[in-house]
Amino acid sequence: MQNHETLYQVADRVATITLNRPDKLNAWTAVMEQEVRSAVEEAERHENVRAIVLTGAGRGFCAGADMSLLKNVADRGLDQRAKEQALEARSQRSGIRSDFQKKYSYFLGVGKPVIAAINGPVVGLGLVIALYCDLRWASEAARFSTTFARRGLVAEYGMAWMLPRIVGVPNALDLLLSARTIDAAEALRMGLANQVFPAEIFLSKVQENARELASMVSPRSLRVMKRQVYDAMFQNLGEAFEISEREMLESVRSDDFKEGVAHYLEKRAPSFTGR
Amino acid sequence: MQNHETLYQVADRVATITLNRPDKLNAWTAVMEQEVRSAVEEAERHENVRAIVLTGAGRGFCAGADMSLLKNVADRGLDQRAKEQALEARSQRSGIRSDFQKKYSYFLGVGKPVIAAINGPVVGLGLVIALYCDLRWASEAARFSTTFARRGLVAEYGMAWMLPRIVGVPNALDLLLSARTIDAAEALRMGLANQVFPAEIFLSKVQENARELASMVSPRSLRVMKRQVYDAMFQNLGEAFEISEREMLESVRSDDFKEGVAHYLEKRAPSFTGR
Amino acid sequence: MQNHETLYQVADRVATITLNRPDKLNAWTAVMEQEVRSAVEEAERHENVRAIVLTGAGRGFCAGADMSLLKNVADRGLDQRAKEQALEARSQRSGIRSDFQKKYSYFLGVGKPVIAAINGPVVGLGLVIALYCDLRWASEAARFSTTFARRGLVAEYGMAWMLPRIVGVPNALDLLLSARTIDAAEALRMGLANQVFPAEIFLSKVQENARELASMVSPRSLRVMKRQVYDAMFQNLGEAFEISEREMLESVRSDDFKEGVAHYLEKRAPSFTGR
Repeated sequence: MQNHETLYQVADRVATITLNRPDKLNAWTAVMEQEVRSAVEEAERHENVRAIVLTGAGRGFCAGADMSLLKNVADRGLDQRAKEQALEARSQRSGIRSDFQKKYSYFLGVGKPVIAAINGPVVGLGLVIALYCDLRWASEAARFSTTFARRGLVAEYGMAWMLPRIVGVPNALDLLLSARTIDAAEALRMGLANQVFPAEIFLSKVQENARELASMVSPRSLRVMKRQVYDAMFQNLGEAFEISEREMLESVRSDDFKEGVAHYLEKRAPSFTGR
Repeated sequence: MQNHETLYQVADRVATITLNRPDKLNAWTAVMEQEVRSAVEEAERHENVRAIVLTGAGRGFCAGADMSLLKNVADRGLDQRAKEQALEARSQRSGIRSDFQKKYSYFLGVGKPVIAAINGPVVGLGLVIALYCDLRWASEAARFSTTFARRGLVAEYGMAWMLPRIVGVPNALDLLLSARTIDAAEALRMGLANQVFPAEIFLSKVQENARELASMVSPRSLRVMKRQVYDAMFQNLGEAFEISEREMLESVRSDDFKEGVAHYLEKRAPSFTGR
Repeated sequence: MQNHETLYQVADRVATITLNRPDKLNAWTAVMEQEVRSAVEEAERHENVRAIVLTGAGRGFCAGADMSLLKNVADRGLDQRAKEQALEARSQRSGIRSDFQKKYSYFLGVGKPVIAAINGPVVGLGLVIALYCDLRWASEAARFSTTFARRGLVAEYGMAWMLPRIVGVPNALDLLLSARTIDAAEALRMGLANQVFPAEIFLSKVQENARELASMVSPRSLRVMKRQVYDAMFQNLGEAFEISEREMLESVRSDDFKEGVAHYLEKRAPSFTGR
């Protein structure tokens, strides 16, 4: 895989994808989009990867869509988009609901946890992408803004659906309508950040926490539970309950359950296989 | 428009509707209801208004339903209510889902942001009305209570649907079942208030923030995004995503998008038209 | 009713069910399950009970499923479970949606408030059970963990549906995927605890608050509003609104409404009958 605008690295079973246009605060381009998608597919395929971290090079996470991308959208218009959608439809992955097969929502259908490590400003489309990650760990240097309303734009790429389900309806309206910039402390209060770490130890905390996800818990459990949570957004309690009973019965027959009990009784670190 | 129990004022493109029975802590009456509805319709119609603020005269926001209103409901009962509903059904606005055409939920269908500026106690029906506003800015002097359970009443006017979607299910149950009074700090923690300001600067902060909404962001963006967020409460992600793509393509052909980019590149304040 | 692993006590119209295997941190067994169900049914039937408190003896709330229970599930597998479900289906209570008739979700269909008084660690299945309570009051000594991912298990008994609706999607994913242990302060921030009290006054605060629920508010209001809130999770706003109008008209003809107004005007404590 030849990367031009991203970096891809695997260590300690954690795949790190780094947006790498630091002089542009990692503004999002069509090239970046392809590279991130390939990297995520690679990370999902490889058995040695158990957690996926998305972060930005330099002082920003992602400054939003690069002007080139926006211009592109404006020029091509609806016809071109229709063709793209036809292409997307043909590449639908079976067994994954169509809600999770959109341009950025495909993170939700990935069978491993995807974490946004928000090292600095995250704006517009950058924030949309962070919303489709499962967890958001933020540096105290992070700043968050939707910005769309300041450009005459709208809530793009399903953000009007996803943002309220992350921060609640009132915070979503606040962030979308005012387009104001919030800091890491306010992001934590809203639930937009799961955890916040001081800038100077941010990278090491991200690595430490990601390594824990990659070693201390069952990859099988993570895969099943991530799907359970996102599917439950479209289910009644009764349906979710029945699925959970089936999944529980399967889990107690898995290798990871045996190991989960064994390492506990033997008071040692676990060694899960994901089976 | 002749007002008896409310005030209506427009300045800096912000319409302010003031509940004006300060000696009764602005307890809600049938007259008030008609006047607020007319004022909101007026504010929505006028191109010069870009944000709508609802607040209370004197030291309270709204003490809930006036006893006269409650008595009225009790006396007339179901038959009268059925006639009213028939009347309401005839005045349904086309293009707006029926969820947003109820007695108080019609705020959700208004194409401009509606802000509750909660200057003091907000109780019972007053709280219901504040929930149907898009944003809630609170003075440190604000106090919040559902009170219904202390009167032998229930979660009125769709509150059992709306409150959990504002503060989450556990806080909604807490507020409804205990009927306890919470202060502004707890309201902020629950997400019931978007922002809290000290009492002595409350009015000026409200005006400042409302002016920003009326000048720094595109009215077209606000109109579209407000609809996106509320509609998304009834959609799957896939549907919301497809709508967001259509809306994005329309937005990049709008005057406000041109101005949104131009003012940014020219480093000047924007001058949006809403088209 | 003969209790072996629980205690049942009624005082001041508050029924307290205590998980009573303190030497095992009240790990959950099949016996405990039957006893809790019987106790809740007893508390619901008795007119003298107006609030139900679930708590743990000793220093823990509930350490999760006892190993004996897990082994049982693993041994019996799907066939046995299918038989159980057939039995459960026959004992469905009419008028209560099937979502609220599952193994633990039946708390949601109980017509009186059910409160988890979380005195100490609450883990795994213990946490699931606490989620199906209406309110969660926590001691500062409380600790919370899902733990499933460390055992190779999944989000059990509908937890993937319920937890996100209690703490939001990002916190739910955090707690399920990392299986980390959080303290009472973080539980409060996430909305997992409604209120937190210092350990040394925890019991007296629980009793005080429960007594308030049992005396200061209308039992009729609590019953109706609890149902309104949970039913609204499955409704559109329009449906919930119409139900609220019907319920309001019924409430203003109730004895509790008369008393609710009378005690207010007479400035005295209320004496509700629940009718």
